[in-house]
Amino acid sequence: MKFGGTSLADMERIRHSARHIKREVDAGHQVAVVVSAMAGTTNQLVKWCEEASPMHDAREYDAVVSTGEQVSAGLLAIILQGMDISARSFSGWQVPIKTSDVHGAARIEDIDASDLNIRLNENQVCVVTGFQGISPNNRVTTLGRGGSDTSAVALAAAVKADRCDIYTDVDGVYTADPRIAPKAQRLERISFEEMLEMASLGAKVLQTRSVELAMAHGVRLAVRSSFADPDGPQSDSKNTNFGVPGTLVCDEDEIVEKQIVSGVTLVKAEAKITIRSVKDKPGVAAAVFGALAKEQIVVDMIVQNISDDGRQTDITFTVPDSEYDKAMAAVSNNEGRFEYESIKGAKGSAKISVIGVGMRSHAGVASSMFNALAEKGINIQLITTSEIKTSVLIEEEYAELAVRALHTYYGLDKKEG
Amino acid sequence: MKFGGTSLADMERIRHSARHIKREVDAGHQVAVVVSAMAGTTNQLVKWCEEASPMHDAREYDAVVSTGEQVSAGLLAIILQGMDISARSFSGWQVPIKTSDVHGAARIEDIDASDLNIRLNENQVCVVTGFQGISPNNRVTTLGRGGSDTSAVALAAAVKADRCDIYTDVDGVYTADPRIAPKAQRLERISFEEMLEMASLGAKVLQTRSVELAMAHGVRLAVRSSFADPDGPQSDSKNTNFGVPGTLVCDEDEIVEKQIVSGVTLVKAEAKITIRSVKDKPGVAAAVFGALAKEQIVVDMIVQNISDDGRQTDITFTVPDSEYDKAMAAVSNNEGRFEYESIKGAKGSAKISVIGVGMRSHAGVASSMFNALAEKGINIQLITTSEIKTSVLIEEEYAELAVRALHTYYGLDKKEG
Repeated sequence: MKFGGTSLADMERIRHSARHIKREVDAGHQVAVVVSAMAGTTNQLVKWCEEASPMHDAREYDAVVSTGEQVSAGLLAIILQGMDISARSFSGWQVPIKTSDVHGAARIEDIDASDLNIRLNENQVCVVTGFQGISPNNRVTTLGRGGSDTSAVALAAAVKADRCDIYTDVDGVYTADPRIAPKAQRLERISFEEMLEMASLGAKVLQTRSVELAMAHGVRLAVRSSFADPDGPQSDSKNTNFGVPGTLVCDEDEIVEKQIVSGVTLVKAEAKITIRSVKDKPGVAAAVFGALAKEQIVVDMIVQNISDDGRQTDITFTVPDSEYDKAMAAVSNNEGRFEYESIKGAKGSAKISVIGVGMRSHAGVASSMFNALAEKGINIQLITTSEIKTSVLIEEEYAELAVRALHTYYGLDKKEG
Repeated sequence: MKFGGTSLADMERIRHSARHIKREVDAGHQVAVVVSAMAGTTNQLVKWCEEASPMHDAREYDAVVSTGEQVSAGLLAIILQGMDISARSFSGWQVPIKTSDVHGAARIEDIDASDLNIRLNENQVCVVTGFQGISPNNRVTTLGRGGSDTSAVALAAAVKADRCDIYTDVDGVYTADPRIAPKAQRLERISFEEMLEMASLGAKVLQTRSVELAMAHGVRLAVRSSFADPDGPQSDSKNTNFGVPGTLVCDEDEIVEKQIVSGVTLVKAEAKITIRSVKDKPGVAAAVFGALAKEQIVVDMIVQNISDDGRQTDITFTVPDSEYDKAMAAVSNNEGRFEYESIKGAKGSAKISVIGVGMRSHAGVASSMFNALAEKGINIQLITTSEIKTSVLIEEEYAELAVRALHTYYGLDKKEG
């Protein structure tokens, strides 16, 4: 069970999360818990480090910032004990969770779960600090962004957990953002591959890295709400095949009825840049995107057509609106590393994607998507596809309309109202 | 160098303390630093533990409360690095500082200083978290009251430091409290034994336990001000034989000109209780003070006279005024474990002590003290003495007058003004 910062924001919220743990313990499960820092704590610690020195040593930064989870783990253990549950806290170094020595962005390399396993077998709840570990030099490391989700998945793999429940402020993964598509519904199950596309395409429920790790180790993830009543009904009609409310992220094989499309995602504020009549020769794409990488600009979509005459081609790519000016400058002043006729671009596009493992075996998803958009008079600017995803770039003002249209078109709307 | 919480209260104060360290580094010294938590942090962490459960597990309490020093150690290391000083932080478990497993009040059992010594020899400043260590079970422990002073002394002994400088909010140990005796002056040197009497008699500069440890290991302590200008004059006329401003706490042998009296201390709000005509037989004192110990009442002075007839005697003791009612009840309702004629007592006394190793070789200190008080018309209620200390109990309203009178009488007043 993993609880994030908002689920541990104050004593009342920690107590509420503890009741979720008690429910699982009472049901006879062995439980390991991974915690983030209390909401706000990490920001305060980061701020102090920055005040101490803008160029702070990452090792000292890690020593300071990692204390947040030590506090929440200790407090949660105390509260569990107060509920007559045998519990103790573990710091990353106590487990130990061994990581690389890339401070501030360390990778988990190995977890020695022998001590944890002994205690789990004694039905003791092990509360482990997320987001951190210990380097080969015996120094505390932090894992970087989304680190606690990754800690939870790695720990679940190490103790061979039946499931890794990620408790968060939403009650599952939805077919679309309910604020945009009011008829969006919670998915009962979603495959790792789909979740990865969802995660990287704008659904902020799980960190990409934790999903990759879960897929690699076959750890079944459940996205569940920590805000729900811990003692409320524990299954509802929508979740009978999975047993608890939430969304199960699992292997494709575990999903019997595969939807062609599982979800529709949206990323707004995309800018497109087209380089016309680039000389079509080996190395030209590398030169273009090398110029952008040098400026640390992350490129999203890339489209290059086969050229008519085999001598020149057009390259189009997208970047966040905020990076548009920097990206234009980077490709324009390329110091003669590639030749082109003209560069043009514009801000204000939106990327809409439909995602589903069913696409693999169903032809025509892309064309039906284009039809659905054409019906609403929405012009498509760019198209990219992968095995289980089709993305289009459209004018931003049509974004919400497009999401709702596709959501309905692929039969994802809730049946009732 | 040890810095307490008020010397690390915010970023500005940490920076100020760092300048004291830089001065020592620039002078060519190898420096290990022991830090407390930033002022206020520990209280917040303790409060959270109490909110989590009034009956919290001491092991989890230690896990939570020990994070305060980890934060201040990391921030100080970052600030030192920003001043181009090679530095790194160490948690208690990283050193490691091995302690007993009495959580919340652990005792340091061993410090493996091999890693520290390597780094000190490389002229790296080692910033070590005070107040904590690691138990044989690999769990974080805290040392209890005044723990950081004790950590500093133990570490100084382990690395064989030339001196252990305790930076605090006063600039040394004084012959009396300057708020009471304006002519009080800073002592240049004071012996461990005298300091122990001072510490336990109301001068709150150093924790008793750290002085005991320093005496046992022959660690020379210096009490210095962290609030002073780090780059101000580093020695003054009063401190030529010691080299830096402050007070050196050292072995008696290092003090050439021994004062008969080094200081006058005061403890107010003492209550006295007299049990009259207790049957004088073995075990009666044990019965009286056992009844008080059972109620966790700490008794200060104890006086029992030889009885006239060998059959009964009077026992008088003092407790803090706040414990008076509890103490009266404890000795009155003693369930017949000792017999007495009457019990009487009163609040509102003050204990005045004169302290000095010179008393060992000078007869008549006690009687001269009584004379000095008699000259001012101050009546003495009780007298106790030890090898280097004479204490009297007087009426509280004469307390300040008595301190000033004795301070003058023993030649402790500043010459000027």
